[in-house]
Amino acid sequence: MRAHPRRVGLQPDTIQEGQLILLYADGRKWLLKAGHRSFHTHKGIVDLAQLMGKSYGQGVKSSLNHEFIALKPTLYDLIMHLRRPTQIIYPKDIGLILLKLDVTPGKRILEVGTGSGALTMALASMVKPSGHVYTYEKRPEFAEVASQNLSKAGISEYVTVKNYDASRGVEERMVDAVVVDIGDPWTVLEPVTEALKPGHPLASFSPTVNQVEKTAAALSDLGYVDLETVECLVRNISVRPGKTRPQTLMIAHTGYIIFARKTLL
Amino acid sequence: MRAHPRRVGLQPDTIQEGQLILLYADGRKWLLKAGHRSFHTHKGIVDLAQLMGKSYGQGVKSSLNHEFIALKPTLYDLIMHLRRPTQIIYPKDIGLILLKLDVTPGKRILEVGTGSGALTMALASMVKPSGHVYTYEKRPEFAEVASQNLSKAGISEYVTVKNYDASRGVEERMVDAVVVDIGDPWTVLEPVTEALKPGHPLASFSPTVNQVEKTAAALSDLGYVDLETVECLVRNISVRPGKTRPQTLMIAHTGYIIFARKTLL
Amino acid sequence: MRAHPRRVGLQPDTIQEGQLILLYADGRKWLLKAGHRSFHTHKGIVDLAQLMGKSYGQGVKSSLNHEFIALKPTLYDLIMHLRRPTQIIYPKDIGLILLKLDVTPGKRILEVGTGSGALTMALASMVKPSGHVYTYEKRPEFAEVASQNLSKAGISEYVTVKNYDASRGVEERMVDAVVVDIGDPWTVLEPVTEALKPGHPLASFSPTVNQVEKTAAALSDLGYVDLETVECLVRNISVRPGKTRPQTLMIAHTGYIIFARKTLL
Amino acid sequence: MRAHPRRVGLQPDTIQEGQLILLYADGRKWLLKAGHRSFHTHKGIVDLAQLMGKSYGQGVKSSLNHEFIALKPTLYDLIMHLRRPTQIIYPKDIGLILLKLDVTPGKRILEVGTGSGALTMALASMVKPSGHVYTYEKRPEFAEVASQNLSKAGISEYVTVKNYDASRGVEERMVDAVVVDIGDPWTVLEPVTEALKPGHPLASFSPTVNQVEKTAAALSDLGYVDLETVECLVRNISVRPGKTRPQTLMIAHTGYIIFARKTLL
Repeated sequence: MRAHPRRVGLQPDTIQEGQLILLYADGRKWLLKAGHRSFHTHKGIVDLAQLMGKSYGQGVKSSLNHEFIALKPTLYDLIMHLRRPTQIIYPKDIGLILLKLDVTPGKRILEVGTGSGALTMALASMVKPSGHVYTYEKRPEFAEVASQNLSKAGISEYVTVKNYDASRGVEERMVDAVVVDIGDPWTVLEPVTEALKPGHPLASFSPTVNQVEKTAAALSDLGYVDLETVECLVRNISVRPGKTRPQTLMIAHTGYIIFARKTLL
Repeated sequence: MRAHPRRVGLQPDTIQEGQLILLYADGRKWLLKAGHRSFHTHKGIVDLAQLMGKSYGQGVKSSLNHEFIALKPTLYDLIMHLRRPTQIIYPKDIGLILLKLDVTPGKRILEVGTGSGALTMALASMVKPSGHVYTYEKRPEFAEVASQNLSKAGISEYVTVKNYDASRGVEERMVDAVVVDIGDPWTVLEPVTEALKPGHPLASFSPTVNQVEKTAAALSDLGYVDLETVECLVRNISVRPGKTRPQTLMIAHTGYIIFARKTLL
Repeated sequence: MRAHPRRVGLQPDTIQEGQLILLYADGRKWLLKAGHRSFHTHKGIVDLAQLMGKSYGQGVKSSLNHEFIALKPTLYDLIMHLRRPTQIIYPKDIGLILLKLDVTPGKRILEVGTGSGALTMALASMVKPSGHVYTYEKRPEFAEVASQNLSKAGISEYVTVKNYDASRGVEERMVDAVVVDIGDPWTVLEPVTEALKPGHPLASFSPTVNQVEKTAAALSDLGYVDLETVECLVRNISVRPGKTRPQTLMIAHTGYIIFARKTLL
Repeated sequence: MRAHPRRVGLQPDTIQEGQLILLYADGRKWLLKAGHRSFHTHKGIVDLAQLMGKSYGQGVKSSLNHEFIALKPTLYDLIMHLRRPTQIIYPKDIGLILLKLDVTPGKRILEVGTGSGALTMALASMVKPSGHVYTYEKRPEFAEVASQNLSKAGISEYVTVKNYDASRGVEERMVDAVVVDIGDPWTVLEPVTEALKPGHPLASFSPTVNQVEKTAAALSDLGYVDLETVECLVRNISVRPGKTRPQTLMIAHTGYIIFARKTLL
């Protein structure tokens, strides 16, 4: 290999009408659609038209002369900025679920409890283009919001949102993994187990210890093995030269995740 | 939607010669290649040939009459069971990196510090089949082990392992994300920044606070914004009916992750 | 011993004019002086005179018919309710310091950095009546507030508050333990070491990692051994039948505590 | 105040026959009785006689020329080195209990579940010389070990150890605080409530969530208010210049502590 590598002819992503941008200024961020319009903030008006055709990473001055930068939104940003009438599963938990459930391109995943679609969005982004996510949400208003969120993120085609109560049965069979995020997971374990390939993993997310106990017992009864319950904590560190310290406040609890594997026992 | 869904004609994954299986018995797990051979454990000898052509999730009795179950290995299992002459980045940290760096199918990712290839394996599993991972490792013995690990996991074709010191320059340009996992991240920040698309994210993993301070300062100097430093903790809960409690011991620290975004400032 | 024990003739503590009471209603608490007056809250007016001569634990109805209960304030309550123009050391940290520094009745303790007097109050409460606390505070306004807080808690006679910069020297000799809570602990380590009995312990509290590193290095240079640095985290659990879970938010960081022991090396 | 303070005529504590010393060498510690004898370690033989009459903090060379230092044991050391046939409550939890229960000189404290006497030792050390601890332990062998531990620590006279099942009733009345550390706290709550002054605090320590739920419900039924359940975590930091980081392993759980206050409701 050469020490002075050859420049390859790739181009930066440029910002096009209708694309999502993450506008950044002084630690604040806004998820926006690019377009020929202006955006009003407490730091002045930003003329988004100036960004059209420019590279991500570009700065633009507001009317009050503050620097705003157009960043490329990531899956993390999409999740954190989606419209959420419900509690969402946070990226810290989602990340672990992806690895434990082997959510990789091409997989078919069954989700019960779409909610606002935060986890759905992550699942779909990972299984695309050849995989698919089937997600059940019994409350019509949440199914609607989730569908809109998935559409905004541009991944609707990889998801089937079903406004149906999964405790009454699910249509899918031989899915690669199952994830449950509802208040009473035990009510859907029989149907989702019917849908899951043997030897494959399931995850269930619950805020309380009591839900965890009840879900774990039901999973054992259904022949699941390798049960593992965890909680995942993320601590933010304030890094400043000579003054580095963990931040004072943290989110200490979102929920517990139970992982288990279906057997033929 | 119907309450009694139609059965679709999908088949379970069956175990074939040479495939990886995760053998499970009483809380212990072994990652093995399926084949016509026997496997010796403290709970007796397992005749793996009995599993050939069977579905995952199937149980088999050992010579000492213990039940062993063949599970489908997940990305998590592959990472936790790989050969590791180095410290690895753990799934809890990898999961968060995947979301923050938008590591999704089709992306081109640059990694510096292959180590044993744990993170590389996760990156490759997520960007495949159309994306690619370029990973630099200056120590030949680790580059070799990582290549073997990637090969065993069946994802070599999505990774280019380069036995080269990235502080001397990298060949790639316009990659979608960069992740750094070496002892002195600041030595490679200039070359990897040249490789990264503007507006796109970078992550750096370091065990000590001092590394974090130095890396964060270097990133700011290079015009990165939206710096965030976190540590991710996973706590295992022992769930037993009427006796549920967090486990006594936990891994309290692996390292800190710094996230940042390249700008054109 | 008998199964039906004899009643001994002890009386409950009764509430007297001028004593401190902790008034409790629906999860809120106020630290007050008992007296012939009324106390105004958002849940109505409480006639404190009704409590005079009554036992602690007694309830009284407000003008809006809410139940208020007069509790006996503990050291914890005094600390959490004191007037605090500065950051205080929290009970979780104070408790550990008491045990590690052997702050027991009769001991003579040297403190540098009185601040609002939270830790001072705990130290004095533990060493009384035969011990004493010597505390240095260079900012006159804080020395004044601390003195008032100690007076309100009724333990002034066990404390000498010195409005003096301890980095210029301290008068005490052969104290049983030293505790430092200032921004630049290393500036006072020489004087306080002169004051401390050999073989005895010192603690220093600091919010940042950088302060900890610098203080630890200075302690080693002065011949201290058995250095131990910890952070203490308290997590609140919301206990409700069938809905028990850790609380969402927690105070994730107050500071690090370094413990060390003076030697004659 | 003078910048060059006067030296007062205090003397260091000198080591006398039969006193406890904490011998320290290279991070290891042993709690010993001083005397005219030698002590064998993996770093050579230490002639303890050389320390007699010397000050604490003094070093002595072993037969293999390693430096050993005689430190003054603290309450923390006594607790961590006591003989423990049972799980003990750790200093991190004890410290918080002391402050929440107002365990200060002169107080009368009731404890149920003496165990090895770790908490008992701390309680007695804080209430002496005018206060007293009454502690119940139904298993004779633990009552015996605890008595020996208290005797070794020199605080037996401030404690009454009762080998009796507290669920059958307790003799004490009008104690200032109650602490319970048994597997089924709810069985003793009625008797200890009879013993506790109204308006005064109680603490109960339990490892599992289920115990916590059951105890909290029983306390509410008995009219207690201001219930608070916490877990206290201590994380050790490895402080080395330029390499500072939290330690890899930590004790993630000992137990939960419930605090509550008796009322006359």
